[in-house]
Amino acid sequence: MQTLLLNADDVDENARMDRVIDAVRGAFTAYERGNAKMPAKSYIDLPEYNGDFRSMPAYLDVRTEDTAEDDGWDAAGIKWVNVHTDNPADHDLPTVMGTMIYSDPETAFPLAILDGTTLTMKRTGAAAAVATDELAVPDATSLGIVGAGVQSYTQLEAIAAVRDIEEVVVSDLDEERVADFIDAFDDRFDVRAGSVSEAGHCDVLSTVTPVEEPIVGPGDVGDHTHVNAMGADAAGKHELADGLLSDATIVIDDHEQCTHSGEINVPYAAGNLTDDDIYGEIGEIVVGNRPGRAGAGSGSDAAAGGTRNAGVDGVTVFDSTGLAIQDVAAARVVYEQADADGNGYPFDLLGLAE
Amino acid sequence: MQTLLLNADDVDENARMDRVIDAVRGAFTAYERGNAKMPAKSYIDLPEYNGDFRSMPAYLDVRTEDTAEDDGWDAAGIKWVNVHTDNPADHDLPTVMGTMIYSDPETAFPLAILDGTTLTMKRTGAAAAVATDELAVPDATSLGIVGAGVQSYTQLEAIAAVRDIEEVVVSDLDEERVADFIDAFDDRFDVRAGSVSEAGHCDVLSTVTPVEEPIVGPGDVGDHTHVNAMGADAAGKHELADGLLSDATIVIDDHEQCTHSGEINVPYAAGNLTDDDIYGEIGEIVVGNRPGRAGAGSGSDAAAGGTRNAGVDGVTVFDSTGLAIQDVAAARVVYEQADADGNGYPFDLLGLAE
Repeated sequence: MQTLLLNADDVDENARMDRVIDAVRGAFTAYERGNAKMPAKSYIDLPEYNGDFRSMPAYLDVRTEDTAEDDGWDAAGIKWVNVHTDNPADHDLPTVMGTMIYSDPETAFPLAILDGTTLTMKRTGAAAAVATDELAVPDATSLGIVGAGVQSYTQLEAIAAVRDIEEVVVSDLDEERVADFIDAFDDRFDVRAGSVSEAGHCDVLSTVTPVEEPIVGPGDVGDHTHVNAMGADAAGKHELADGLLSDATIVIDDHEQCTHSGEINVPYAAGNLTDDDIYGEIGEIVVGNRPGRAGAGSGSDAAAGGTRNAGVDGVTVFDSTGLAIQDVAAARVVYEQADADGNGYPFDLLGLAE
Repeated sequence: MQTLLLNADDVDENARMDRVIDAVRGAFTAYERGNAKMPAKSYIDLPEYNGDFRSMPAYLDVRTEDTAEDDGWDAAGIKWVNVHTDNPADHDLPTVMGTMIYSDPETAFPLAILDGTTLTMKRTGAAAAVATDELAVPDATSLGIVGAGVQSYTQLEAIAAVRDIEEVVVSDLDEERVADFIDAFDDRFDVRAGSVSEAGHCDVLSTVTPVEEPIVGPGDVGDHTHVNAMGADAAGKHELADGLLSDATIVIDDHEQCTHSGEINVPYAAGNLTDDDIYGEIGEIVVGNRPGRAGAGSGSDAAAGGTRNAGVDGVTVFDSTGLAIQDVAAARVVYEQADADGNGYPFDLLGLAE
């Protein structure tokens, strides 16, 4: 028995986005139903290097759930990931790097070791897609992107899997990034550069920036825009103005993480946003314990041939911090596909091969 | 920049025991001096598989400390390890398997991924050696081993690096294990099978069993035996009778871990052993904040040409649960040696190679 090594290209190739979205939906479902075990992220802060390490272990069991992919599965693993802000300038390395160990929960054998950086982008895109599926208007055709960095690509890739996106407006102060983004997608979409407000007036908006002061105000979004707020990943960061949040229906991925380091952490800490302002967790909506947008959602009556009339409307915001169960779910997709296709490099790490 | 993959053989070959002992001593020193960051071990319990996963992240900095090896270093990493009791019988796999990610703390780049199973054995042996160096009589020549499983080999290997061990008595109910152990070492030591009491009357005793009921009683040890109690790794497990502990000087590696899952956890939970019965932590002795055995210890006056007259005597017990900083320290030794010697398999996991 060997451990399959899956590098960045392997992860990219085997993370089929439709399956990653299904897997992440399964993860949110398992979490909501109490079928996930996810200890709190643990941090090692290294101020002398302006960085930190985060360990994200998780187990999830969707064997008793409905999934679109197969009859159910369980999975375990850990992602070891960092945020070292000076890396690009000082070391020609990415700010964030991740390594994922994917394990068989029955025996704990490490089935695969994966590039966790690419995996993070995939599962983050998938989370936005699940939320968009539940919260965007069903006939959404336009997507705005604020921040054209590495995470923006999987936002479009994933969201286009749940809505028929035709028009894309990308906004970034860095013109080269914008040009690269347009180059990457203009064969498939009508992509153009635009202001934050133009991006925000699309049916769906994803914000993927590391800013500490909000850059999207209440007047920068349309009257039914669904916003995926993906950027905030630490205390003190937020992308959306308080006034936008106060008028919106707010859905979070996890209360502890979101109030600690998600989009809502700053107004929450300041007392400008309270638990009463949070509509619910994405898992509640996915399993149908709480309505998403009227007419939207794979779990809606519409999907079963009916129409979900009751539901939220207006501006919606998904505060995504990223859960360890998303990484495990996405790692499973990559491992299963790579294993089936003979991709990756098998390595006898533990010395247990015959 | 690539990640160096180090399998079980690579770890075994590059974990030079004298250096691992120095590194683990450095880890205990850093921990005692507040120069280590070690979040609590986090557990994922999977009763349906009779197993659990444990994540053990850590950072340690010995740049300001005296180490025997070099001018100082810092290091970070995480071990993902499990205990699945049914593995040997049901899956032909070890009960415990570990995977270690060793990272550069300055950038967080994953310098190496190592077999954590072999690494655990090495650093566990090294911890026993550090304690033996501080707590066994200086002229110890005999070592008893109770439990001839996989952990027993590194006990002898490591302890022989700090004392001139000539005679070894090994005790195990499994005769084949005993024979294998004797085969492995009878070219270097006078090794023989014996009873628990014969093993316990050596100058040093290491117990490395998974028992839940004590197997070493007060009459089973000599009047100056130093006992390394290595086996207990979960609530409810202990190897030494309460009567032995109550008469001994007890040194622990970490208060939280030892009272939760170490040798002392059962009498501590029952109230038969209290904090007043704990002499101190190994780090306190290593740095000289608390005396070890009179005349023993690398940090003693003897090492500086004098004699440490004040110190403990009689029976001593080291309760070792295993700290994440030991794994990181040992991983550094393995990585540095392998890197210098061109061992291991470089792999572009993150897709960052030129």
